[in-house]
Amino acid sequence: MTETHEIVVEKVKESKIGNIDFDNLTFGKTFTDHMLECTWRNGNWENPVIKPYGPIMMEPSAKVFHYGQAIFEGMKAFRDEDDNVFLFRPEDNWKRFNESAKRLAMPEVPEEIFMYGLKKLVDLDREWVRYGDGLSLYLRPFMIASENGVAAAPSTEYKFMVVMSPAFAYYRGDVRVIIASQFSRAADGGIGYAKAAGNYAASFYPNNLALEEGYQQIIWTDAASHEYLEEAGTMNIFVRIGDKLLTAPNNDRILNGVTRRSVIQLAQDKGIEVEVRKISVAEVKEAAESGELKEIFGTGTAAVIVPIKGFKHEEYTHELPVLNDSYASDIKESIKDIHYNRVEDKHGWRVKV
Amino acid sequence: MTETHEIVVEKVKESKIGNIDFDNLTFGKTFTDHMLECTWRNGNWENPVIKPYGPIMMEPSAKVFHYGQAIFEGMKAFRDEDDNVFLFRPEDNWKRFNESAKRLAMPEVPEEIFMYGLKKLVDLDREWVRYGDGLSLYLRPFMIASENGVAAAPSTEYKFMVVMSPAFAYYRGDVRVIIASQFSRAADGGIGYAKAAGNYAASFYPNNLALEEGYQQIIWTDAASHEYLEEAGTMNIFVRIGDKLLTAPNNDRILNGVTRRSVIQLAQDKGIEVEVRKISVAEVKEAAESGELKEIFGTGTAAVIVPIKGFKHEEYTHELPVLNDSYASDIKESIKDIHYNRVEDKHGWRVKV
Ligand SMILES: Cc1ncc(COP(=O)(O)O)c(C=O)c1O
Ligand SMILES: Cc1ncc(COP(=O)(O)O)c(C=O)c1O
Repeated sequence: MTETHEIVVEKVKESKIGNIDFDNLTFGKTFTDHMLECTWRNGNWENPVIKPYGPIMMEPSAKVFHYGQAIFEGMKAFRDEDDNVFLFRPEDNWKRFNESAKRLAMPEVPEEIFMYGLKKLVDLDREWVRYGDGLSLYLRPFMIASENGVAAAPSTEYKFMVVMSPAFAYYRGDVRVIIASQFSRAADGGIGYAKAAGNYAASFYPNNLALEEGYQQIIWTDAASHEYLEEAGTMNIFVRIGDKLLTAPNNDRILNGVTRRSVIQLAQDKGIEVEVRKISVAEVKEAAESGELKEIFGTGTAAVIVPIKGFKHEEYTHELPVLNDSYASDIKESIKDIHYNRVEDKHGWRVKV
Repeated sequence: MTETHEIVVEKVKESKIGNIDFDNLTFGKTFTDHMLECTWRNGNWENPVIKPYGPIMMEPSAKVFHYGQAIFEGMKAFRDEDDNVFLFRPEDNWKRFNESAKRLAMPEVPEEIFMYGLKKLVDLDREWVRYGDGLSLYLRPFMIASENGVAAAPSTEYKFMVVMSPAFAYYRGDVRVIIASQFSRAADGGIGYAKAAGNYAASFYPNNLALEEGYQQIIWTDAASHEYLEEAGTMNIFVRIGDKLLTAPNNDRILNGVTRRSVIQLAQDKGIEVEVRKISVAEVKEAAESGELKEIFGTGTAAVIVPIKGFKHEEYTHELPVLNDSYASDIKESIKDIHYNRVEDKHGWRVKV
């Protein structure tokens, strides 16, 4: 922590935590007492400050409103039985944040602001990290272009902020997916691998059409041929054929998920064979027909692992079997054991706050 | 205009126009006295208001900051010798705005708010529309997702706003372009045809790399093969081979430009043969070699028509000739004659304010 990056802390007069009904939270709607804010201008990050969560003033000409120069991360803090608080692989999020920044022509955020700031903020609001299965504090670091002016060029000023929202394990209901054959999420040479704001807005309309048909999510396919599975809206995708677990390789178009990486590692720890390779829609349908298709599941920070109950591709539909020996359930329990400090942290993924 | 959409006007106490140095404007940096704001919630557009230009309060969790649900339009108002003020084909912008809205899962803005609001706003700030060759008032209607909450789903609340900035004909310097062979802007099934904020942020990094090589813009090619020309950052592209003018057809990936449409019409009025069809990079290079490649130019509201001086594609570079009978100059003059009411408006493009 250099002198210039010393973080000023302005505390709330009174915490609002007493007013929060932790048993009735809507995901991402309730925020903790404090937030972090830091401004980049003239080539420097200036005045990082932790202050009461509240509105910010923006000119209507701020570039983020017009040109979508905005990136974010999603990560979680967990509390264990002994009231220790941990982050899960936060370095991975910091690195990915800066990869996103680079692709969006935004300045990188130094580790001392991102990581030290995050820890200080979580520490200050640690009462908001509740103990209990599935409970966590969702952390949302993000960066927006704050220069005023509607010329279509990168901003000369940015705000880096972190806001935090208590989250619980909610039952999503059954998740069925449409495998995309018309719409696409990202192209080679594009920004699909970045956690860029614009990628998400692009998926809302196709996702609404899927919802109208009774499907909750879309599994995107490659834009050029629509023949290979990529990822879902906010999850990477795994397919179990026989006893083998398959997931698509990282490329320009796919977000390199932290949960995905953790699932690959834990599966391998359990002796499950994992193949990271292109998965064609055709082979998934064939495996569905032959009975070899056992599971499809999504992985991501928000819901950890989400089993897919069924899928549709063009006119073809298929329901997945219900298994006793589900990889999804087994691996999910193992990740949660690490989150809540119930097992040894063999891979060094927990970071204590 | 229905009762509910009656636009309330709150005027500034004192105009700031006296402090503006109209001879030294930076594009998109100075805004007029007033702006329009209207909120969509519970399925309705509520309380359109024209009020002093100034900052807005947003929660840091507003969806526009996280998921890039934001669209815009760019259009201009012109003043003629007799102090009449005109918009240029504003209906086209309104229709395109709503096409963008649909693709981004945002509500459409009714004509009475968009068009009547725009005219009322321009009328109120009509002193800001200066008379003179190349002078205009740039209008920026835009819509942003204003619901608070970081769940990745379409917003339930939106703000539609219009801000306006006086603009002048600035000399851009020479424009040379790189024809993209690696990066891409949009994919089939994506949002390239929408004026969506996220499309622009995606182009900044590749454009910075081009600038470092001494090229001011990129001409995008199709993401799947990089073999066909699409459009530039904020301009559609025309290529003149021999006496024929070529431009790429509209599709999922290209913005359907109002200037492009006007240029096609005016060229045809002049008896120039226009072919709207795929243009391969290979044929452009061949025509460059044979001497048949006469002009390349970009078309867009901001700069109207921008001649391209040279291009690079992979290792190949080429300088365009300087012509006496340039289509670009000729057609640009014809459009400006219509803008400034110097000729009859044969196609009904001017709309008086
Ligand atoms: C597009 C997309 N894919 C995959 C993921 C999963 O990534 P992670 O496991 O790092 O949360 C996310 C983020 O949650 C995402 O936004
Ligand atoms: C990507 C893109 N292409 C082309 C254009 C040209 O469109 P128009 O002539 O309607 O301004 C624009 C907007 O200016 C644009 O943003």
